[in-house]
Amino acid sequence: MPSTNASRKGQEKPREIVDAAEDYAKERYGISSMIQSQEKPDRVLVRVKDLTVQKADDVVWVRARVHTSRAKGKQCFLVLRQQQFNVQALVAVGDHASKQMVKFAANINKESIIDVEGVVRKVNQKIGSCTQQDVELHVQKIYVISLAEPRLPLQLDDAIRPEVEGEEDGRATVNQDTRLDNRVIDLRTSTSQAIFRLQSGICHLFRETLINKGFVEIQTPKIISAASEGGANVFTVSYFKNNAYLAQSPQLYKQMCICADFEKVFCIGPVFRAEDSNTHRHLTEFVGLDIEMAFNYHYHEVVEEIADTLVQIFKGLQERFQTEIQTVSKQFPCEPFKFLEPTLRLEYCEALAMLREAGVEMDDEEDLSTPNEKLLGRLVKEKYDTDFYVLDKYPLAVRPFYTMPDPRNPKQSNSYDMFMRGEEILSGAQRIHDPQLLTERALHHGIDLEKIKAYIDSFRFGAPPHAGGGIGLERVTMLFLGLHNVRQTSMFPRDPKRLTP
Amino acid sequence: MPSTNASRKGQEKPREIVDAAEDYAKERYGISSMIQSQEKPDRVLVRVKDLTVQKADDVVWVRARVHTSRAKGKQCFLVLRQQQFNVQALVAVGDHASKQMVKFAANINKESIIDVEGVVRKVNQKIGSCTQQDVELHVQKIYVISLAEPRLPLQLDDAIRPEVEGEEDGRATVNQDTRLDNRVIDLRTSTSQAIFRLQSGICHLFRETLINKGFVEIQTPKIISAASEGGANVFTVSYFKNNAYLAQSPQLYKQMCICADFEKVFCIGPVFRAEDSNTHRHLTEFVGLDIEMAFNYHYHEVVEEIADTLVQIFKGLQERFQTEIQTVSKQFPCEPFKFLEPTLRLEYCEALAMLREAGVEMDDEEDLSTPNEKLLGRLVKEKYDTDFYVLDKYPLAVRPFYTMPDPRNPKQSNSYDMFMRGEEILSGAQRIHDPQLLTERALHHGIDLEKIKAYIDSFRFGAPPHAGGGIGLERVTMLFLGLHNVRQTSMFPRDPKRLTP
Repeated sequence: MPSTNASRKGQEKPREIVDAAEDYAKERYGISSMIQSQEKPDRVLVRVKDLTVQKADDVVWVRARVHTSRAKGKQCFLVLRQQQFNVQALVAVGDHASKQMVKFAANINKESIIDVEGVVRKVNQKIGSCTQQDVELHVQKIYVISLAEPRLPLQLDDAIRPEVEGEEDGRATVNQDTRLDNRVIDLRTSTSQAIFRLQSGICHLFRETLINKGFVEIQTPKIISAASEGGANVFTVSYFKNNAYLAQSPQLYKQMCICADFEKVFCIGPVFRAEDSNTHRHLTEFVGLDIEMAFNYHYHEVVEEIADTLVQIFKGLQERFQTEIQTVSKQFPCEPFKFLEPTLRLEYCEALAMLREAGVEMDDEEDLSTPNEKLLGRLVKEKYDTDFYVLDKYPLAVRPFYTMPDPRNPKQSNSYDMFMRGEEILSGAQRIHDPQLLTERALHHGIDLEKIKAYIDSFRFGAPPHAGGGIGLERVTMLFLGLHNVRQTSMFPRDPKRLTP
Repeated sequence: MPSTNASRKGQEKPREIVDAAEDYAKERYGISSMIQSQEKPDRVLVRVKDLTVQKADDVVWVRARVHTSRAKGKQCFLVLRQQQFNVQALVAVGDHASKQMVKFAANINKESIIDVEGVVRKVNQKIGSCTQQDVELHVQKIYVISLAEPRLPLQLDDAIRPEVEGEEDGRATVNQDTRLDNRVIDLRTSTSQAIFRLQSGICHLFRETLINKGFVEIQTPKIISAASEGGANVFTVSYFKNNAYLAQSPQLYKQMCICADFEKVFCIGPVFRAEDSNTHRHLTEFVGLDIEMAFNYHYHEVVEEIADTLVQIFKGLQERFQTEIQTVSKQFPCEPFKFLEPTLRLEYCEALAMLREAGVEMDDEEDLSTPNEKLLGRLVKEKYDTDFYVLDKYPLAVRPFYTMPDPRNPKQSNSYDMFMRGEEILSGAQRIHDPQLLTERALHHGIDLEKIKAYIDSFRFGAPPHAGGGIGLERVTMLFLGLHNVRQTSMFPRDPKRLTP
């Protein structure tokens, strides 16, 4: 690799090596010229997580970030970090390193990316502060690949400190806006790495489960010509010389796919809500995991498939992502997520009875407020020992016009929400598949039939009974991990006040 | 099941059963009341594709669409369709069916969904017009579950007719706008079912391959605060009291994830281009399969990963979706897709030499026109026998400002496109990871630095060398299947003239 101990044009010089002529190690360190794909060296870079006693006495090359550095006489201790793993490295004056080289190493800015050649050495005393506790790296060569600026907008160690500890001892933590304004650095913490690896796992488990169940993945348009759900809370887009809108859900398109005989479909994609809500659980753009499915005779066929899909996700996460769950819980302690098999299904009237017994006053046809949802979650947890359940048979009055009424009770509907730790993560229903009933219900809701003509027409050429629902990815991630703000589980969150980065 | 031979309120009455008192089969047919999840019957519905000689003499229930019906004296022959499968059913006057019942069956509108009870009977002569050639269903009960309106806006048989045949014999085909205006029906054809099942497979294979390679799936925002690539061709969104934009690619966010140590990321999501292009291969909204990856020393590490991912997709499709490929080729005949392992990589200058040898006049720093891309595809196919290849080292002048220049030749760049059957499906490059060089290149392109400050700042705290690219899902589907318009491979296409359905 071409490298040089002269600093690169325009980058801040590390404090200087005096009298380079006397430096017997001068070829062994420096700032590499920018990697522009000049060469294809054979060099193998070993992963930090693979630095274990099995590699003791091997000479290895490692690329990692400088997490911390600490000079101490003729030695410099570095902690090298690679994703959630780190290892201690030692540069000490001797055969391989000169005092200038130790000084160079000690002056590399934190978060810089370096290439290091070193010997893996077993240590006698475990290194408690690193994930690789049994070895350290004795550095023979050290080159800066990408130099970080000297002042970081936030410190990674502050960013992973549990907040309760910060309150107690006055040590710094990092507030949410600073994190989000500097997301590229905040995402490097072990907590962020774990959150978003687990989130990737949720998507993977969702699709894996549904594909095994015979579902087809569909892609639905986000730019739509009419605000299908009445026009409230919808973003307007300039579309050439006209206006268009951003889809508030893929529901119409999922239903069209059911009318087009795909039978069982799912999609994962952005959902847009122009709602001026600044709460811990609302975003203006979030990721929807959507399901729609034709059924034979009863929408519970669909409820069971959706609930089982969520159970498969929970099981998969607990099996495959235990390390990530543990990592997050170090900063945000929380009880493991509990669920039953099969999933508990409560009817709305049963939930009302539980709430009333706990002193809540509610009408039969009233929707659940957020505090009542949370209280219900606690009551259900006490009684049934589950953090996940289905609430079925919502009052017809509180659901959208396309919701199928319950044939046994005209005030109820064939609709359901699903809850994790007392917060709603999915809303769904049997949809009306009959164009005439759909028209009647739309009129009842005062909806302009002209605006939903295309929607109603979709059902005119034979439509199977069907049901479905939409899951909020960020909420599932948040609630599974017991976090408290959906901005922690959206990489680049969007709310009425935040559009950057 | 509750059912009635009186027609349902408001739906068109099938021609009437006279003198119901004399009808000994009157409980055996009729129009079911709307399925509102009244009951959970034990009845098992058998899939049409499972109706084979193994089931001969079994009594089965089937739910399917009426594809065609043909009355003939005391008999009525129906073709029952379920997705891409169909079977012949016979209602004949006898013990189970009265003449009124045969008449009822004969009058059910095409595309209606029905439940049928029948005996599976082996036939002596294969039924050439059905996928289930060895059996037919002798109907004992028949109920309409969802009645289609009598006039269909297009006929499914017309919609799957190969176009060349239409030209020859004057039989009807269906033009593209009629198809798209009535997409719910057009998507029911065997061709459409196959196209979109295969497209679902492309997404699945893409993710399966990348997750096996250690990639993490990310979700990137679609509403952004600034038009990052200069402001041309971007849709504007009203965002509360301000303006925002729709992301033209997830590139900035993918790169931020690389700067945040995720190392290898991918995402699948909508990409928006406000381009007034009305060609066979442009959409204003399409699905991007995006990859970004840190590399060690040379961007070819990334090119190889991406090319191998596409090869795994091609292999997976040919292994798992042969039925779908054959189905599409019945309507749109085409040569099987050919590719090499490892993938052919040509340099731009080699391609120029091939084109010049074929008589094309081009400058060294000129971009490929669409006709020249296609010609090059033919020349490459002739010489190397592959429909897929990488074209590497594009002239720096024709690539975006963030493209890494080639250190060996300042007029070239570390960038590449990938082609299928002579059309571009991916554009990618090594990105500049050094904030100073990025600033220089932006200034050279006349870009307002203030607008891309956040982008450049992402690289100030240590950034690994990295490269990536974005694949157009609809183009891959179109070109793999040898189709000729990207609207055939987008369920609900968006172009400057089309925003519905």
